[in-house]
Amino acid sequence: MHISSIESTQDLVLSTLLDVAINNKTKPLGSLGMLEKIAKQIGLIQKSTHPALNDPAILVFAGDHGVVAENISAFPQSVTWQMVENFLAKGAAINVFARQNGFALQIVDAGVNHEFGQRDGLINKKIAPGTRNFAQEPAMSLDQCQQALQSGAALINALKGNVVGFGEMGIGNTTAAAALMHKLTGLPVAKCVGAGTGLAPEGIVHKQRVIEGAVAFHANVVNPLEVLATFGGFEIAMMTGAMLQAAKQRMVLLIDGFICTSALLVAAKLQPEVLDYCVFSHCSDESGHQAMLRYLGAQPLLQLGLRLGEGTGCALAYPLVQASVNFLRDMATFDSAQVSEKKE
Amino acid sequence: MHISSIESTQDLVLSTLLDVAINNKTKPLGSLGMLEKIAKQIGLIQKSTHPALNDPAILVFAGDHGVVAENISAFPQSVTWQMVENFLAKGAAINVFARQNGFALQIVDAGVNHEFGQRDGLINKKIAPGTRNFAQEPAMSLDQCQQALQSGAALINALKGNVVGFGEMGIGNTTAAAALMHKLTGLPVAKCVGAGTGLAPEGIVHKQRVIEGAVAFHANVVNPLEVLATFGGFEIAMMTGAMLQAAKQRMVLLIDGFICTSALLVAAKLQPEVLDYCVFSHCSDESGHQAMLRYLGAQPLLQLGLRLGEGTGCALAYPLVQASVNFLRDMATFDSAQVSEKKE
Repeated sequence: MHISSIESTQDLVLSTLLDVAINNKTKPLGSLGMLEKIAKQIGLIQKSTHPALNDPAILVFAGDHGVVAENISAFPQSVTWQMVENFLAKGAAINVFARQNGFALQIVDAGVNHEFGQRDGLINKKIAPGTRNFAQEPAMSLDQCQQALQSGAALINALKGNVVGFGEMGIGNTTAAAALMHKLTGLPVAKCVGAGTGLAPEGIVHKQRVIEGAVAFHANVVNPLEVLATFGGFEIAMMTGAMLQAAKQRMVLLIDGFICTSALLVAAKLQPEVLDYCVFSHCSDESGHQAMLRYLGAQPLLQLGLRLGEGTGCALAYPLVQASVNFLRDMATFDSAQVSEKKE
Repeated sequence: MHISSIESTQDLVLSTLLDVAINNKTKPLGSLGMLEKIAKQIGLIQKSTHPALNDPAILVFAGDHGVVAENISAFPQSVTWQMVENFLAKGAAINVFARQNGFALQIVDAGVNHEFGQRDGLINKKIAPGTRNFAQEPAMSLDQCQQALQSGAALINALKGNVVGFGEMGIGNTTAAAALMHKLTGLPVAKCVGAGTGLAPEGIVHKQRVIEGAVAFHANVVNPLEVLATFGGFEIAMMTGAMLQAAKQRMVLLIDGFICTSALLVAAKLQPEVLDYCVFSHCSDESGHQAMLRYLGAQPLLQLGLRLGEGTGCALAYPLVQASVNFLRDMATFDSAQVSEKKE
């Protein structure tokens, strides 16, 4: 799998043309702030001074986590499948926001501990009914991990648009994401652990101890894929595979919160160029996400104290991404509008 | 003119019902962050647990400023009318963003130094062809100021929707806004002055000296309306009048950047309750806006380094406001979706 690095392979002429196009628009230089950066990024991704976004999709991956046996979540595991039902019934936050902002929404059973049967709107990519408890053994085998990566890539191949957001649902998955973050960034576990769906402070301390114990137990695991298999979830691994494939296809990747970014951490360890294709939708209120974004050199669009997951940040930030492309395509230039430019 | 204070007159039952409605949605408590606050605010404004937004409009007020004679802007005054032409030709940033996010856009000549004649899409509320130079005399008479406030209110009365954003265009108007900010907040002039459309550092120092000189010259002016007449612009005064009327009609007010917020500063000095109706769309990169927002106790939705004006922040932030209302109306509850709640 090969992803082109925008930075290293970009057409330097295109880069300059994009700067000129952005700066000639009828506005003070730089006055659209981060939207100008995103317009340029998408121009480089699409190799065009007139980029366009079409048929945006959000894939929501659901999976269960054996580590819930360690009592690390404020909600029972059954909430994972119940929320999948809620997605299918179109009652969750991601349904509301995806509908508002024009996303096709795909719900993927990556490994939920529940038998859904054949269901309209649910894509069955179940690897197993939940991972194993990583406090005691690897969450999944390397074979299962590989299968999850491939399933994620296959889902991307079936999309028709050029922009994709990633969401997840999985009780226990902030614990998995925090362990991945610690292993892949080297930051102390305490910096990686947060309240998840709403742990009290003593619950957070317990969660931290569980992760520290598991990290000590699996001390010899360092290779990124092995780290993913040992601590990850099926939904996380499937996101990682989907991200790598989306970047390979030069799509715009919308990154959500803490768990989604943990999947990207793995992807970036495997292929650093994936980052060139990412728009970071928001900085989550989940403790650790800010440090994760800083580690990746990422500048998020929104800072609204969100910590819901499901891809909600992607859906909410998307109008700003559209606006970036739209101003580049549709605004007049100083020339075309006959507006005087800055004094000398 | 009387504006109801939401804080003091709110139905306490409604406030509780809104909290319950928000907290019962299928999401971790508080996990939609600022969107939850806005949902509640709009519920209180509309006195409903099922608020709805309809027919959003943005009014862009354009006016010229006599103080440009002091060479305080990076662009020539003619850019004001040229940009009005650009608005009418639908080539400016606000045209692009308003179209994208479903706003009706109204362009108002509040006092541009140009004869447009009768023009499709341009609302003629011209008070005079620009204000006077406030470095030497009051920018406008109290009569003109009153006329501008009334024109702004009349424009609101003609709207059919329940949400309105405010934008402006006027070369020199960051100088007027900085003077208003200094007079109304008591913050030092240096904290109120920024680069506007792109002054170099020495230009900013000069602009600061001009304002300090003018403030000393008009030292006895303290009453908010007199401050507005002395330092303001026709577009600023018209925004102030429009804001007061919109709040009186219990509309949702979308506040843009530095100049728009300076108009709100005046409005809030006249009727503090106006703030209950305001959603602050963004924190501008114009130096001073952050302090202005802090003074008002305002929490902005976006922080994207924008500093364009025209109401662009309102247009860009609106999907987040819509999302706040939408999740409150359309998300399932734990009960309705049969999702388990938090452990004990």
